[in-house]
Amino acid sequence: MTASPDLYVRDLHGSLQDPVLGAVGFLNEVMSRYPDAISFAPGAPHPEFVQGLDTRALTERFLTHLVTDRGLDPAGAERALYEYGPAQGLINDLVAEALRGDQGIHADPREIVITVGAQEAMLLTLRALFRDADDVLAVADPCFVGITGAARLLDIPLVPVQEGPVGLDVDHLAAQCREARATGRRVRACYVAPDFSNPGGVRMPLGVRHRLLDLAAHEDLLLIEDNAYGFTASEDDSLPGLKALDRERRVVHIGTFAKVGFPGARVGYAVADQRVRHADGERLLAEELADLKTMVTVNTSPLSQAVVGGLLLDHGRSLTALARAKAERYRRNLACLVDALDHHLADELPPGIVWHRPAGGFFVRVDLPVPADHALLEVSAGAYGVLWTPMSQFSLTGRGDRQIRLSCSYLEPDRIETGVRRLAAFLRKETGA
Amino acid sequence: MTASPDLYVRDLHGSLQDPVLGAVGFLNEVMSRYPDAISFAPGAPHPEFVQGLDTRALTERFLTHLVTDRGLDPAGAERALYEYGPAQGLINDLVAEALRGDQGIHADPREIVITVGAQEAMLLTLRALFRDADDVLAVADPCFVGITGAARLLDIPLVPVQEGPVGLDVDHLAAQCREARATGRRVRACYVAPDFSNPGGVRMPLGVRHRLLDLAAHEDLLLIEDNAYGFTASEDDSLPGLKALDRERRVVHIGTFAKVGFPGARVGYAVADQRVRHADGERLLAEELADLKTMVTVNTSPLSQAVVGGLLLDHGRSLTALARAKAERYRRNLACLVDALDHHLADELPPGIVWHRPAGGFFVRVDLPVPADHALLEVSAGAYGVLWTPMSQFSLTGRGDRQIRLSCSYLEPDRIETGVRRLAAFLRKETGA
Repeated sequence: MTASPDLYVRDLHGSLQDPVLGAVGFLNEVMSRYPDAISFAPGAPHPEFVQGLDTRALTERFLTHLVTDRGLDPAGAERALYEYGPAQGLINDLVAEALRGDQGIHADPREIVITVGAQEAMLLTLRALFRDADDVLAVADPCFVGITGAARLLDIPLVPVQEGPVGLDVDHLAAQCREARATGRRVRACYVAPDFSNPGGVRMPLGVRHRLLDLAAHEDLLLIEDNAYGFTASEDDSLPGLKALDRERRVVHIGTFAKVGFPGARVGYAVADQRVRHADGERLLAEELADLKTMVTVNTSPLSQAVVGGLLLDHGRSLTALARAKAERYRRNLACLVDALDHHLADELPPGIVWHRPAGGFFVRVDLPVPADHALLEVSAGAYGVLWTPMSQFSLTGRGDRQIRLSCSYLEPDRIETGVRRLAAFLRKETGA
Repeated sequence: MTASPDLYVRDLHGSLQDPVLGAVGFLNEVMSRYPDAISFAPGAPHPEFVQGLDTRALTERFLTHLVTDRGLDPAGAERALYEYGPAQGLINDLVAEALRGDQGIHADPREIVITVGAQEAMLLTLRALFRDADDVLAVADPCFVGITGAARLLDIPLVPVQEGPVGLDVDHLAAQCREARATGRRVRACYVAPDFSNPGGVRMPLGVRHRLLDLAAHEDLLLIEDNAYGFTASEDDSLPGLKALDRERRVVHIGTFAKVGFPGARVGYAVADQRVRHADGERLLAEELADLKTMVTVNTSPLSQAVVGGLLLDHGRSLTALARAKAERYRRNLACLVDALDHHLADELPPGIVWHRPAGGFFVRVDLPVPADHALLEVSAGAYGVLWTPMSQFSLTGRGDRQIRLSCSYLEPDRIETGVRRLAAFLRKETGA
């Protein structure tokens, strides 16, 4: 007799029991049961940006660039699309040029690694920086699930840092550093999205950015900056990112083409200009990340990199230009959502309902007077035809158990309006004391 | 004063000091210093298979399939290329159909996860199966560096199992299981490439396959089968893979389109039909792998999946048909290499030089009478203009320190002939006792 061939989840890696995985599954399942509900849950791109892309022309554009700007012969350029490519990437020079022109980030192409979306950049960065269980990662609470999920996959301990109206609470981070030290551990790095964080929608003022960089220097920790939503700021109202302010190579900057380009490309990047000292010399952290990448995905598909490279070339080698129409659309949608909340939630509401007014990003936070749990979501979906995300599913501490996240990126204005009307009816009837 | 912002490799994760990373770097560096040398080092695809691909037509073919076979409207099919897609994949049905028809693997599409190459499939499988440091992974020694590298990234302990002329030594694996148990650990899984392993080039006879499956059942371990090179067997001489023989869901089968299609696609897959019991029901291991994948790469680029889907559709939904011309080319190259060795190494050689005769795959092993180290490789490259890979760089134990691996996949026959002539001169002069 042999043992049963089935596996038991308790015998598998702990990350498979990460509550985030279940929460995402639950949301998808609710959405599939109420197909007529208006969903403020997904942070998906607007449909107009995932159609009509001429990938062939974009690829041709990139091939021409390889020939005219980099001196490849045409056959060699074509082969570069189909062969294994360099682990560090094919479009590093274009990304470096765009970051310099658009964001004041001065990085050499060798200080950049091109990844399968921002997600792989996060995984690689965490893997390189965290040596063992004494190294802990600080994250905003509530936090983007991609970074906490990647940390769990690598058994990296997490400590929460409160996020307030001006972003990550720098004093709380300092306290967490002291507390870690007192227990023989250290906060190795802190993950932060200073521009319109997901899920909080908060933007960190310039002064707080400087304070955070000062703390990082003082505590000898690194900052992992996620810039997925920075592009949604209006051009006369953008703030320099942490990497642009970084004078000590304290910041690993992570970006993605999922929002400024399109998600299906699966192309992102990390700027990692840190010098890593080996016994026999120095290497760049980006080179170390590329080495690790050979054990994760080998290299980022050159087919995808070519299309993204073509998009940059078609937009004057500028991320800002590439993102302009999208930024406008997402700002309009956000204004529409906030206006609708102002209009429909103005009166007759139970006390304790507050909605926030982010200056960019995809997300609006709403405080409720009652727990925003799965039972309440079922009522909202079933009886009122409107869906949202409980903020607590992004939290390590249960923080935000009376908050919801509304996303409006992929909806048309009339759907946003109708959705908010339904939401108002739901809040009025179901969240009274 | 702040501390120096540089990092020290000793403070980073141990995988960055994996000797494999250095060895690969060394080989590339030697190749760049001797551009005129003939290199038997890379297992790269033949150039004729990385040109002239009409990715647009292949993509159109796949879009038509989505519309006619799966009932998507044309706009929805197009959006599927550009949006985030399902983490589990878009082409699972086509892969399932091909595996059933070509390889006798009967898997439901839901039992498959599409990955960014075989490499990501290995990483995900290891992550799911290995709970903590008491779970060890058995690997053939010498072994493909992608699996040992992924294990190091996840801090999974490795135990070597000797590979002999009939493949993995099943008795040695049994002994390693006993020894692990005696120290409170368990061999959780064993990685094996039964068809023309990289680097050994060995094929496992049918009887050994059955013995391995029996041992897996007896020891309650899983087999991770890598089938990258099985397609190179001639069609009247192929053996059923472990997954085709698997009656107890003991095998996770990993495949790649890098060789039967093209590497730049970065598309692979895992067949993981194991049932995983949770407190509230059962899930498929493939679904668990897809959940983990959301924290690694989110999903495999639909652009790439569409091209690979188009390749399958263009070849009657058959991997064998897709691979036919490639299998013929690689068999011809292998025969050419072995013939040249027979011809040029026939006499006047120091004793102790033996070359092997694999029935398929990309690699020929040669035993030397002296250590095949980096110093010897420098001599071979510099004075004789021929490069090869020291087998010891694939070993956990230093095994194979007097062996080299010759790869001939990407070379033209005349280059193989010339390269072997140089190799013969080198061996004659430099490997005498």
